[in-house]
Amino acid sequence: MVRVDGERLWSRLMEIAQIGKTEKGGVCRVALTQEDKEGRDQFVAWCKHAGCTVSVDCIGNIFARRHGTCDDLAPVIMGSHLDSQPTGGRFDGVYGVIAGLEVIETLNDHEINTEAPLEVVCWTSEEGVRFSPAMFGSGVFSGTIRLEEALNVADKDDITVDEALDSIGYRGNVPVGNKPVKAAFELHIEQGPILEAENKVIGVVTGVQGIRWYDIEIKGKETHAGPTPMSLREDPVASVLPILQSLYDIGAKHAPWGRVTVGEIVTWPGSRNTVPGRLTCAVDMRHPDNEVLDAMDREFKSVVASLSETQTTATHIADVWHSPAVKFAEECIVSIRQAVSELGYTNMDMYSGAGHDSVNISRVAPTAMIFIPCKDGLSHNEAEYASPQDVTSGCDVLLHAVLNVINSPEQTSRHG
Amino acid sequence: MVRVDGERLWSRLMEIAQIGKTEKGGVCRVALTQEDKEGRDQFVAWCKHAGCTVSVDCIGNIFARRHGTCDDLAPVIMGSHLDSQPTGGRFDGVYGVIAGLEVIETLNDHEINTEAPLEVVCWTSEEGVRFSPAMFGSGVFSGTIRLEEALNVADKDDITVDEALDSIGYRGNVPVGNKPVKAAFELHIEQGPILEAENKVIGVVTGVQGIRWYDIEIKGKETHAGPTPMSLREDPVASVLPILQSLYDIGAKHAPWGRVTVGEIVTWPGSRNTVPGRLTCAVDMRHPDNEVLDAMDREFKSVVASLSETQTTATHIADVWHSPAVKFAEECIVSIRQAVSELGYTNMDMYSGAGHDSVNISRVAPTAMIFIPCKDGLSHNEAEYASPQDVTSGCDVLLHAVLNVINSPEQTSRHG
Repeated sequence: MVRVDGERLWSRLMEIAQIGKTEKGGVCRVALTQEDKEGRDQFVAWCKHAGCTVSVDCIGNIFARRHGTCDDLAPVIMGSHLDSQPTGGRFDGVYGVIAGLEVIETLNDHEINTEAPLEVVCWTSEEGVRFSPAMFGSGVFSGTIRLEEALNVADKDDITVDEALDSIGYRGNVPVGNKPVKAAFELHIEQGPILEAENKVIGVVTGVQGIRWYDIEIKGKETHAGPTPMSLREDPVASVLPILQSLYDIGAKHAPWGRVTVGEIVTWPGSRNTVPGRLTCAVDMRHPDNEVLDAMDREFKSVVASLSETQTTATHIADVWHSPAVKFAEECIVSIRQAVSELGYTNMDMYSGAGHDSVNISRVAPTAMIFIPCKDGLSHNEAEYASPQDVTSGCDVLLHAVLNVINSPEQTSRHG
Repeated sequence: MVRVDGERLWSRLMEIAQIGKTEKGGVCRVALTQEDKEGRDQFVAWCKHAGCTVSVDCIGNIFARRHGTCDDLAPVIMGSHLDSQPTGGRFDGVYGVIAGLEVIETLNDHEINTEAPLEVVCWTSEEGVRFSPAMFGSGVFSGTIRLEEALNVADKDDITVDEALDSIGYRGNVPVGNKPVKAAFELHIEQGPILEAENKVIGVVTGVQGIRWYDIEIKGKETHAGPTPMSLREDPVASVLPILQSLYDIGAKHAPWGRVTVGEIVTWPGSRNTVPGRLTCAVDMRHPDNEVLDAMDREFKSVVASLSETQTTATHIADVWHSPAVKFAEECIVSIRQAVSELGYTNMDMYSGAGHDSVNISRVAPTAMIFIPCKDGLSHNEAEYASPQDVTSGCDVLLHAVLNVINSPEQTSRHG
């Protein structure tokens, strides 16, 4: 059975990690900066060396194409992103891109042709650090974000995406999207602890969790810590405790896939000896089943309404974002399962808890993802790590999933 | 029975409130600024007009003396402060100073002489906004803070107290403290809602609550909101909920005088979709009985220790400050009670929940305080308000408390 060249893959990952490398061994390659440009340049050079035709669309997405024997067939794409968090790691995103290139190198080495063309895609600005929202390039590609809007988005220094693309030389002339895709795969580190905890090498990702974001705001009354008896206070901190406890209870009730995160709590004015007059919390709630997520939402609202009847403070819950759960394409999942089974890797089905470019791509093409473990579940962190063995195994699965989807019954097979 | 001139008192309060007045009807007269200087100048001018001898000590405390018939007796002092919070009100501090002057004016009007001299004192920098700690002038006067240390304290622009005193012309040459004081009274708005809720005009303040300050720090693990199952998280927000609830339970258990305030909560890194890796809370706990406050402290520590056994996060409680409860002097309290009784005002005994210059002064002189209601318990707020009637009543009580303490059995009475 054909296998990828794990050493080449690993050495390229380590080489590209030099671009924007941080003192703590991580990577700072924020979208559309000089470091992003250098990372893209390195990737493009490798792709050209591997015989690919490289094109860039108007939002800066890079497509490196290995031509098929029937080159007008819709391509199978393998995509992720090269941009990173400001204190990001060496695997998030870049692994899926460089692994796609490794698949092409391996097919070249073994002189395996495919009928449909293959493309490795680098999606622009997945992390959403400098330009918001996240998953920018795949968003425009899939029609989630309009191109004109996207180009006008500005960073905190008022530099627009339009200007930033020009400044790094990656504003291409290929129209964005409207392009048939046979199948799309994204190989990624899990960014969570489950595979490691379950001692599995491969996660067959069957979908992405639905996400609801809430802003909780509680207005109380700013009063001096000393003179005001507890019974006469309007204390938003006291009020938020049962609200947050109810969120954790809801998360626990819908284990193991329910998730509730209170990422930020802010108190105003934030003085030790003043009862805060106002408190806000930023809440993130997730579940891979839209019906369950909706039920969690109703439970939360109901608890807050019920608590409001007795609390002296005023609570307002704002629904700031709702991203419904995504179910990936059966044919892609089957191709991955078949690859894992042929290769004999330990595996499990799982959901992605994080957003990925594949969420966007799944709107316009059959899509699925492959996860490998990352140490301690750490990601968006300079200490992010995946072992060379797992990195190679994941890429083997990507290779064979791609071949399987091309060889699927409804498709004439000519490769090998 | 002699009464103060309520109209003169009110009109002076309103006139001095013009100095540093804010758009919302409050006052910004931060210690040792130009506004503080102008407030002091106005006060000194009125005192001189009332025939007082004005002196200033090396930390800027102002003493306006009405001579006694036995002028070498220790004076009775009536003191508070003229400085304000940046968005302060028209009564906090300044009321006690201007009311002291009104007592002197009233005695002048009625040609009442006292054997012991009377002094109205303006203590420097009570609020602690620009220079820390709070209650600066009375702190040096009572030996709580050393003069050299105090003069070297700098604000955020590196201007020292020494320089600031010079720049407003209020570095006097009278040595600070080491001065016998027969009795000290401080008339103040309550800064809390109790008198209003109980519908009483006068609070006879028998002591000041003991205060303990804690910094809670909980270290967890920064992880992505999506991929990490609830059971594998080390979430400091989840951990802090039962800790804070225990604090509120302790406050409620020791009602009505127990107080627990969580004035600030900070989450790191403070991103909606990241489980915080670290959380801190600033806690303020108070009770007027030192034994009860110590018991509350033990209960809190015990709950945290017990919770720590099962929580996956690491909690550290730092004791950052402890100010034991203060009991005011019986002879001063009796003088106030007698005055209230003679004047026929509704009243109640109470504790001060806030710190005041009197906490310092009580270390070196028999001291007590008189409270009047403030609207909605609001203070440190531009909307701070006390009614002209209550303002007058409080000053009447101050007048007669001063006369009573001078006329107390162990003192020869010659006034009236």
